[in-house]
Amino acid sequence: MKFAGHHILGISQFDRGHVDRIFEVADRMRPYARRERKTSVLEGAILGSMFFEPSTRTRISFGSAFNLLGGHVRETTGFESTAIAKGESLYDTARVLSGYSDAIVMRHPTEGSVSEFATASRVPVINGGDGANEHPSQALLDLFTIRSELADRGRGIDGLRIAMVGDLRFGRTVHSLSRLLTRFSNVRVSLVSPSELRMPEALVEEMRERGVDVVETDQLEVGIANVDIVYSTRIQEERFASQADADLYRGRFRLNQSIYTALCEPNTVIMHPLPRDSRVGAQELDEDLNDDPNLAIFRQSDNGVLVRMALFALILDVADQVDDYSKPVNWSTERRF
Amino acid sequence: MKFAGHHILGISQFDRGHVDRIFEVADRMRPYARRERKTSVLEGAILGSMFFEPSTRTRISFGSAFNLLGGHVRETTGFESTAIAKGESLYDTARVLSGYSDAIVMRHPTEGSVSEFATASRVPVINGGDGANEHPSQALLDLFTIRSELADRGRGIDGLRIAMVGDLRFGRTVHSLSRLLTRFSNVRVSLVSPSELRMPEALVEEMRERGVDVVETDQLEVGIANVDIVYSTRIQEERFASQADADLYRGRFRLNQSIYTALCEPNTVIMHPLPRDSRVGAQELDEDLNDDPNLAIFRQSDNGVLVRMALFALILDVADQVDDYSKPVNWSTERRF
Amino acid sequence: MKFAGHHILGISQFDRGHVDRIFEVADRMRPYARRERKTSVLEGAILGSMFFEPSTRTRISFGSAFNLLGGHVRETTGFESTAIAKGESLYDTARVLSGYSDAIVMRHPTEGSVSEFATASRVPVINGGDGANEHPSQALLDLFTIRSELADRGRGIDGLRIAMVGDLRFGRTVHSLSRLLTRFSNVRVSLVSPSELRMPEALVEEMRERGVDVVETDQLEVGIANVDIVYSTRIQEERFASQADADLYRGRFRLNQSIYTALCEPNTVIMHPLPRDSRVGAQELDEDLNDDPNLAIFRQSDNGVLVRMALFALILDVADQVDDYSKPVNWSTERRF
Repeated sequence: MKFAGHHILGISQFDRGHVDRIFEVADRMRPYARRERKTSVLEGAILGSMFFEPSTRTRISFGSAFNLLGGHVRETTGFESTAIAKGESLYDTARVLSGYSDAIVMRHPTEGSVSEFATASRVPVINGGDGANEHPSQALLDLFTIRSELADRGRGIDGLRIAMVGDLRFGRTVHSLSRLLTRFSNVRVSLVSPSELRMPEALVEEMRERGVDVVETDQLEVGIANVDIVYSTRIQEERFASQADADLYRGRFRLNQSIYTALCEPNTVIMHPLPRDSRVGAQELDEDLNDDPNLAIFRQSDNGVLVRMALFALILDVADQVDDYSKPVNWSTERRF
Repeated sequence: MKFAGHHILGISQFDRGHVDRIFEVADRMRPYARRERKTSVLEGAILGSMFFEPSTRTRISFGSAFNLLGGHVRETTGFESTAIAKGESLYDTARVLSGYSDAIVMRHPTEGSVSEFATASRVPVINGGDGANEHPSQALLDLFTIRSELADRGRGIDGLRIAMVGDLRFGRTVHSLSRLLTRFSNVRVSLVSPSELRMPEALVEEMRERGVDVVETDQLEVGIANVDIVYSTRIQEERFASQADADLYRGRFRLNQSIYTALCEPNTVIMHPLPRDSRVGAQELDEDLNDDPNLAIFRQSDNGVLVRMALFALILDVADQVDDYSKPVNWSTERRF
Repeated sequence: MKFAGHHILGISQFDRGHVDRIFEVADRMRPYARRERKTSVLEGAILGSMFFEPSTRTRISFGSAFNLLGGHVRETTGFESTAIAKGESLYDTARVLSGYSDAIVMRHPTEGSVSEFATASRVPVINGGDGANEHPSQALLDLFTIRSELADRGRGIDGLRIAMVGDLRFGRTVHSLSRLLTRFSNVRVSLVSPSELRMPEALVEEMRERGVDVVETDQLEVGIANVDIVYSTRIQEERFASQADADLYRGRFRLNQSIYTALCEPNTVIMHPLPRDSRVGAQELDEDLNDDPNLAIFRQSDNGVLVRMALFALILDVADQVDDYSKPVNWSTERRF
C-alpha cells in the first residue's frame, strides 16, 4: 500500500486498497482545489511534463495539480523539438530528462513507451496516456467521480449500476474503468453500443469472471433504464464498416434532455470523458443538458485535479504533510459574473 | 468601481474612475517591475494563459506580470493541441479550463470568442485579444504611457493633443485608444492617414459627440506639428486599392529623426504598438530614432507589465495587499554591459 | 573575476580564474541538484527562456536550473509565434523581452544573433547556442565533467590526456572544449577522425601555440589507447565526399564494450555531447556500454544543471547567498523501481 517512489503506469498495479488510499487523499485535496487554502508542500520540487503527443487538458490538469501543491513545472510538447527525432532511444531520453525533475508525467502516442521510459528513469513516472494502452489517472478520476456522485446520494461504489454507451470497442477510458470496477462488489454494467463497436469479448469475460454482472445491448432505451450512472462516449462515423451501417445507427446513442427524462431514473448521473463533439450532427451528448444538475462532466474534469494532486502527493510521500504546509488563500475567489 | 471577480473583456466597461483606479494601482507596481522589491501576494495562485493565436510578447508580458505577483502560470499556445480542433465548444473548453486556474488570460483569432468563453468560465477572464475586436490591456497600457510621459512634463491626460498616424482603418489599437480618450476632457486628436485608411466614420463621430476635437489629414507635416504625442502605426502596402495608390503614399507617413526634428515640437513623445517592421523599405519608424529620449516605445512595452499586474491585482482583489507581502530583492540588478 | 551583471556569450570571455570560480560554485550546487536541500534564493526572479530553435534538453536543463534556485521561467519556443517573423529587429525584440525578466537564456539558429540581441538587452543574457558559433554552457559542462571524473581518480585537469573522436570538423562542442583546454597545463589531445572530418587547422595551431600537445590520427586503436577521457561524437554519413569514403570508414569510430575493453586503459572515461543516435547502423556509442560505470554521458548531462545553476547564481550575484536561503527537502526521494 506504499506509493512513495513508485511509478504509476497502469491500473493493473492497483488493488482496492490502493484505490481507496488514492481517493482518501484526493478527498483531502478539495480545500486546495477550491482555493479555500493553499499549500507549499512541494515548494522547490519540479515536475517534468513531457507531452510527446498533444493533450492540452490533461497537460494543464497535471501541471495545475503540481502547482497547487507548490511545485514548479517544466514542459515539453510535441515531437518537433526532441532528440527522439534524431534517433535518441527512450532509454537515453529517460536518463537525461529524469536528471531535471523530481517526478515526470509523460504522454506518448506509442503503446508501451511510457513503461519503457520509466524503466530508465531515475524519478517516478506517471503515465499520462500511451496510445491505446493506458491512461490511469483518467480511469481513477472517472471512478472517483462515480464515488463522489454516489456519495451525494448516500451510496458507495459497491452495488453500482452503470451504463457505458457508444464506442466500447476503441474507447480506452471505458476499458480502464471496466477493469477498475472489477475491484468492487455487486457491480452491474450495461454495455450499450452498435454491434460493430462492442466491448472486446476478452474484457467482458474478465469482468464476468471477477463477478461483475454484464449486460450487452444495442438498444439505448434498454441499456440506460435502471442505472445510477450513464457514461457516454463518442462514436466516430468512420468506425462503421459501411455508410449504411453508420446511417442505421445515426443518433441512436445520442443523449439529450428529452431522451434522458424519458428513459433514465431520476437523478441518474451523466458522465463523459471529454472532449465532447458539439458540432451540428455530432449527436453525442446534447448541450440542452448543460444546466441539468445531473450532468457531472465538468465535476468529472475538476476531479482530475484532485486525483492528480493525490498521485503526486503519494509518489513523493507528502500526502500527510500537505496540511502542515498550508495557509488560507489571501486573494478573492468572489465571482461577479 | 469594484473589479474583484469581474472579467476584463473590453474597454467599454471602463469609465474614467475605473481607468484612474487601474493606473493608480499600476503606478504602485513600479518597484516590483523595477526589481527593487518582490511580492508573494499571489503565491499559490495559477494563471491559465490560453493563447489560441500566437503572440509571444503579449503572452510573456501577462505571464511575467503574474509571476511578479508571486503566482504560477500554466500555458497553452496554438490550436494544434486543443480539443477545440475536435469539435469541442468554447462553452466546454471554458468549463474545463476554468477548473484549473484562478484567472485566465485568453487570446483567440475570432471576434467575440473571448466573451463567449467568459460566459462559461468559472474564474475571471482577461481578453488578451480577440481578432479585430478588443485587446483592452493594450489600450490601457497605451493610455497609461501617455499619462506617464505627460506627467514627466507636468501635464495630465486632460488637454492632451495627440496625432495618430498610419493605418487608422484596420488598426485595433488606435480604435481602442480613441474610445478610451473620450473619457477625458479637452482632448484634440489629429488623424493622419492615406484616404483609403481613414479612421471609420462612426468612430470619428463618436469621438466628436463626446467632445473630442478631431482633425483629419493625409499630410504628415500638418498632422504632427503641434501635438504632445505621435502614435505611429504600420501601413501594410497590401491595404491599398492599387499599387499606384501605394506608390503615391510610399514613405509619406514614415517618421525618422530628421522628419521628427523638422516637424514636431521639442519633446514630442513617439509611441508605437509594436512590433515595428525594421526591414529595409518598411518605412515606418526608423531606427535612427532609437537613441532619442522621446522615443517611448520600449517604456510603452514595459508599462504593459505594470498595467497587467494591476489588472490581476484588481480582479483577484489583492491590490491593497501587494506591499504587505513584499520584500527587498536579494539578487543583483547591476548591469555591466 | 566578477560575473554580476555580465552576459555569458562565449568561452573566449573566460580565463582560468573564471572557469575555476564557475566550477567552485557548481560544486556547491550538488545538494540542490540531488534534492538533499532546496533553496529559494531566486524566489521572485524570472528567467526569460527564448528558444528560437528547438532544443528540449538544453531548454529544460536551463529552466530546471533556474527553478532549483527558486525562480520562475517564462518561455518561448520556435519562430512561428514571434514578432521576428513580422520583420521585427533583434534590437527591438531584445528591448521588449528584456523588460519581462531578470535574465535571459537564448538559442537562435543564426551565428552572432545572441550577441546582437545581448547588445540591446537590459538584463544579462546567456547564449544557449547560436548556430555553429558558441554554446558556452555545453563547453563548461563538458570540462566540469572531465574535472569531476578525474577528481574521482585523484587527478586534476592539468595533465589531462583526452581523445576526441568522430566528426571534429563540424562538431561545435569539441571546438569549444578544445579552446577551453588551452587554459590548462600539460594537456595532451588525441584527435581521431576520418581525414575529411579533421579538426580545423587553425584551431589545431591555436592549441599547439598555447602549449597543448596535439596528435592527429584516423586510427581509433591508436587514438584512444592511452587517454583518461574518450570524447565521442557522431559522424553523419552525408559529411563524406562520396559513398565510397563513407563505406571506407563505416564503423571505424564506433565504440562498444569489446572495443573499449580491448583498446582503452582501465577506467577510461567515456563522454558524448548527446543525443546519441541509437538507431541500428548508427555505430556511434553502443548501448552495451550502458551499464559500464565509466560511461559518464548521463553524469555529463546532469552536470549541465549544476553549471547552469552556477552561471545564474553568478550573473545575478547570489552565489554566496544560496545556502542562506536553503532548507532540507521535505518530499521523499526514495526510488522503489
